[in-house]
Amino acid sequence: MPASTAPATLVALLHGPDQPGLVARVSGWIFERGGNILHADQHRDMEAGVFFQRVEWVPPAGADAAAVAAEFEGFARGLGMNAQVARSDRRPRVVLFVSKFDHCFHDLILRWKSGDYAADFVAVVSNHPDLAEASRGYGLPYHHIPVTAATKAEAEARQLALLAELRADLVVMARYMQVLSADFLEKGPPVINIHHSFLPAFAGGRPYHQAYERGVKLIGATAHYATAVLDDGPIIQQDVARVTHRQDVADLIRLGRDLERLVLAQAVRVHLEHRVLVYGKRTVVFD
Amino acid sequence: MPASTAPATLVALLHGPDQPGLVARVSGWIFERGGNILHADQHRDMEAGVFFQRVEWVPPAGADAAAVAAEFEGFARGLGMNAQVARSDRRPRVVLFVSKFDHCFHDLILRWKSGDYAADFVAVVSNHPDLAEASRGYGLPYHHIPVTAATKAEAEARQLALLAELRADLVVMARYMQVLSADFLEKGPPVINIHHSFLPAFAGGRPYHQAYERGVKLIGATAHYATAVLDDGPIIQQDVARVTHRQDVADLIRLGRDLERLVLAQAVRVHLEHRVLVYGKRTVVFD
Amino acid sequence: MPASTAPATLVALLHGPDQPGLVARVSGWIFERGGNILHADQHRDMEAGVFFQRVEWVPPAGADAAAVAAEFEGFARGLGMNAQVARSDRRPRVVLFVSKFDHCFHDLILRWKSGDYAADFVAVVSNHPDLAEASRGYGLPYHHIPVTAATKAEAEARQLALLAELRADLVVMARYMQVLSADFLEKGPPVINIHHSFLPAFAGGRPYHQAYERGVKLIGATAHYATAVLDDGPIIQQDVARVTHRQDVADLIRLGRDLERLVLAQAVRVHLEHRVLVYGKRTVVFD
Amino acid sequence: MPASTAPATLVALLHGPDQPGLVARVSGWIFERGGNILHADQHRDMEAGVFFQRVEWVPPAGADAAAVAAEFEGFARGLGMNAQVARSDRRPRVVLFVSKFDHCFHDLILRWKSGDYAADFVAVVSNHPDLAEASRGYGLPYHHIPVTAATKAEAEARQLALLAELRADLVVMARYMQVLSADFLEKGPPVINIHHSFLPAFAGGRPYHQAYERGVKLIGATAHYATAVLDDGPIIQQDVARVTHRQDVADLIRLGRDLERLVLAQAVRVHLEHRVLVYGKRTVVFD
Repeated sequence: MPASTAPATLVALLHGPDQPGLVARVSGWIFERGGNILHADQHRDMEAGVFFQRVEWVPPAGADAAAVAAEFEGFARGLGMNAQVARSDRRPRVVLFVSKFDHCFHDLILRWKSGDYAADFVAVVSNHPDLAEASRGYGLPYHHIPVTAATKAEAEARQLALLAELRADLVVMARYMQVLSADFLEKGPPVINIHHSFLPAFAGGRPYHQAYERGVKLIGATAHYATAVLDDGPIIQQDVARVTHRQDVADLIRLGRDLERLVLAQAVRVHLEHRVLVYGKRTVVFD
Repeated sequence: MPASTAPATLVALLHGPDQPGLVARVSGWIFERGGNILHADQHRDMEAGVFFQRVEWVPPAGADAAAVAAEFEGFARGLGMNAQVARSDRRPRVVLFVSKFDHCFHDLILRWKSGDYAADFVAVVSNHPDLAEASRGYGLPYHHIPVTAATKAEAEARQLALLAELRADLVVMARYMQVLSADFLEKGPPVINIHHSFLPAFAGGRPYHQAYERGVKLIGATAHYATAVLDDGPIIQQDVARVTHRQDVADLIRLGRDLERLVLAQAVRVHLEHRVLVYGKRTVVFD
Repeated sequence: MPASTAPATLVALLHGPDQPGLVARVSGWIFERGGNILHADQHRDMEAGVFFQRVEWVPPAGADAAAVAAEFEGFARGLGMNAQVARSDRRPRVVLFVSKFDHCFHDLILRWKSGDYAADFVAVVSNHPDLAEASRGYGLPYHHIPVTAATKAEAEARQLALLAELRADLVVMARYMQVLSADFLEKGPPVINIHHSFLPAFAGGRPYHQAYERGVKLIGATAHYATAVLDDGPIIQQDVARVTHRQDVADLIRLGRDLERLVLAQAVRVHLEHRVLVYGKRTVVFD
Repeated sequence: MPASTAPATLVALLHGPDQPGLVARVSGWIFERGGNILHADQHRDMEAGVFFQRVEWVPPAGADAAAVAAEFEGFARGLGMNAQVARSDRRPRVVLFVSKFDHCFHDLILRWKSGDYAADFVAVVSNHPDLAEASRGYGLPYHHIPVTAATKAEAEARQLALLAELRADLVVMARYMQVLSADFLEKGPPVINIHHSFLPAFAGGRPYHQAYERGVKLIGATAHYATAVLDDGPIIQQDVARVTHRQDVADLIRLGRDLERLVLAQAVRVHLEHRVLVYGKRTVVFD
């Protein structure tokens, strides 16, 4: 996974109270400083009066990307906007959390290895030992941190320490079968989870069993940011697949694996490309 | 809408405890009596031990279709099965219930007029006068039966009397914005409703507003048999459409109209073709 | 269909050679003249070096929309860009071309009547008399212009004269079963056609028969701008539906009607909202 | 991958001239010999007068599955039908053909390892050495058989000898970038190929480039049985994904990988479950 040799780009995600001239001001600021905008996309929530923008640009040759990013964030604050600027020469560091299911685990790692993600996968964390060998086969360190009701707080402390040490920018719960505490979510990096239903339908446990009982004609999967309330975080991506009376619960589980793989992979991708803005329980995904 | 000149066919929907030889016995019974099976489809719920079958056949020339149907039902009872036999020479009689929204109303009637449904649409019932002229333009009698909290019982009595008089086989709630009582549902013919969400998500009122608030990435529609519990009946058909942050509630409502039209039309079609078996909260749809 | 009372907006569609600063210049131009940008979306074809933009804005109160539009077009030319500016207070005038099939005909008119399109449907033209009564029922003038091989040139001349007289901005071929000549397409307004296959598969006649013969597992529909080469114009929208061996040609035709309705309606909508830019055989659809 | 401990089942795929009583005769034959039908599905091509059936049953305890299968095939011949009977206690043997692309390769092997396929993957054959290590990591023998224009006949002879030695029942071309000759296809086992377009659109080379040039709004993938005519064999499965002007060719290739994986995996699955009947250029897929 060598870093690309293309010139470094900056990606700003902005949001704040809408006001006339924001598009002109932002693009003007970049243009006047010799930057070249590659992509710009914006959105207005008319009802809430909020402006959202993603703008990606190449700073002038020789510019200090970190300095330009900091300067832009200050400029945006001056407009009353919240801004985060990411640099393409700084690859996000990703840690996978897994349990025993391995379909999302293999899928994400193979996508990463094939170059789909401009990121570094740096470790796998699990409450079970099952995927240790497979992780090492991929060249990824495996951290087995068992979790029981009695040891959960201690286990999370170990996980947080590890994430800090690894300078992780993102945790991906690839069918990690533990609920992360509000405390963990507050202290750690953002966490993307995959839930195996079309949320908000069938939140909680055994969603395929719930779906079967209810007799739905489509099953779904939902990737969302984990929050303190289970299965309630801002949704990044969802998809569904058609089922009939012929599929029993085992079939739903099998079919659902394809949905889970795809939906989680897509959510991780847009996050790593700095395309997602969260506000309230909603996301703006610029794609 | 002239009756087809093809020979009359019989369609049996059977279900009951599974046992060896059911397929052979049913097909043998028909074959021995000179019938020719056109379609046969069956399903086993392995866990529940229930057998389901839809079989469509042409009785021998000159046979009395009503007598064959009755005889078959007796034969099925002897196997411990519940059977309903429909005759293609007896077109189901359909009554539409509407309020003010007209998209499903126009859609269903135009499909019927184009010959998509082997059924007779015989009347439109509404709690509002708005669609009276359009109904009459289609040549359909319009019955305006206002409903208020105070008059609901009386209005339902009038509706039931009308359905009996019209010998209605099916009521289709084409965005009829009243909840039918358990009493009505028990006394009247089957009722198909369209709910404008992917049930069980967003049951109840204003589902598009609920979907917008939750920030889902797909909206849905669900056609189901109405039961005494609101939005809880056996699901016949569901579908979804992709939405993004760019769509506000008005957009969801507009996009949802296409889903509602299509999902309701498909559900009505499979019901009228005798393809739906209900058991518990689930349906078997032989298509 | 009363005109909206919202303030008039302008929508510019621009394209031309890419160069640094285009986003800043366009948004700056609007901002400096007191305009307020509601939506701006742009695209770069990196390989071809072409920049595309759709920008929608409210000119300052009291401004002459026509003058601002003309001034903007001159500004864009100065940047080497081609620009077309549409005004929301000038509703496009649409003429439907039909033959005998009526599913797209009813669908488009009902959408228009329900307020989905910010446009005026002004007439129906047909080579057959079949839909005359239905058109008049909708309050739309019906022009029956028969077409035979011998009279085609003359018929097209009559059609063009009618379109000129009606000041038509768009022709929608709602399953109009005649090929329009290159001459007609050059002299008349833009023409959107619906082809009942997933182009480029099954161009030409009887696409559902072709699809059946080939044994495809999905059927499709394609809305495109008509060009001198049959079924070869720039594609605006496409969609597909799953089929199995159980569907015969008649079923494909029936299922295809739903696709045709939806795909054509969506294509007409994005065109009328000035969201489509054509270049070569491709379209940019800003939605 | 231990063999299941469930009792062996037989699956018959029959087709032949339609005649009254086929369902009754087949099910009667099984029932009279103490068999228990688990699934039966049939189809009539009304126009061609052909009957198709898939029937899966458990022979009586102690029966010799091979003898029952042979006896059934004789019975079917007596009805003028062609029948193939597969035994669940005899797992099909699969050989993967690959070149350099590895996404379908990993996907199929991981599905097999997770128990999705009731089959034995026995070897990987490639015209390149690239995937040798990965194959061995999965415990699969890797046969590197280079192919050039000059050596193609010789290479195919080696491949055929290997397939015979391995007693292969199926070859899966998992993005194998060589055209197999008519001679190979005649002498070897059935071959399933994945083509990265929605056939018949964009047959031949570089289909994503073709799709980009044409400006389609959906890309597709098609799994089909390889025949002597390139990309013309009977289609087993197809699917599509939506694209916009924002996706360049590299994006189409990336998005297409998900389609290719899924479509090929589904086609392999239905083949291995004996659900596919070929007739002419079409398939009947009983699922």
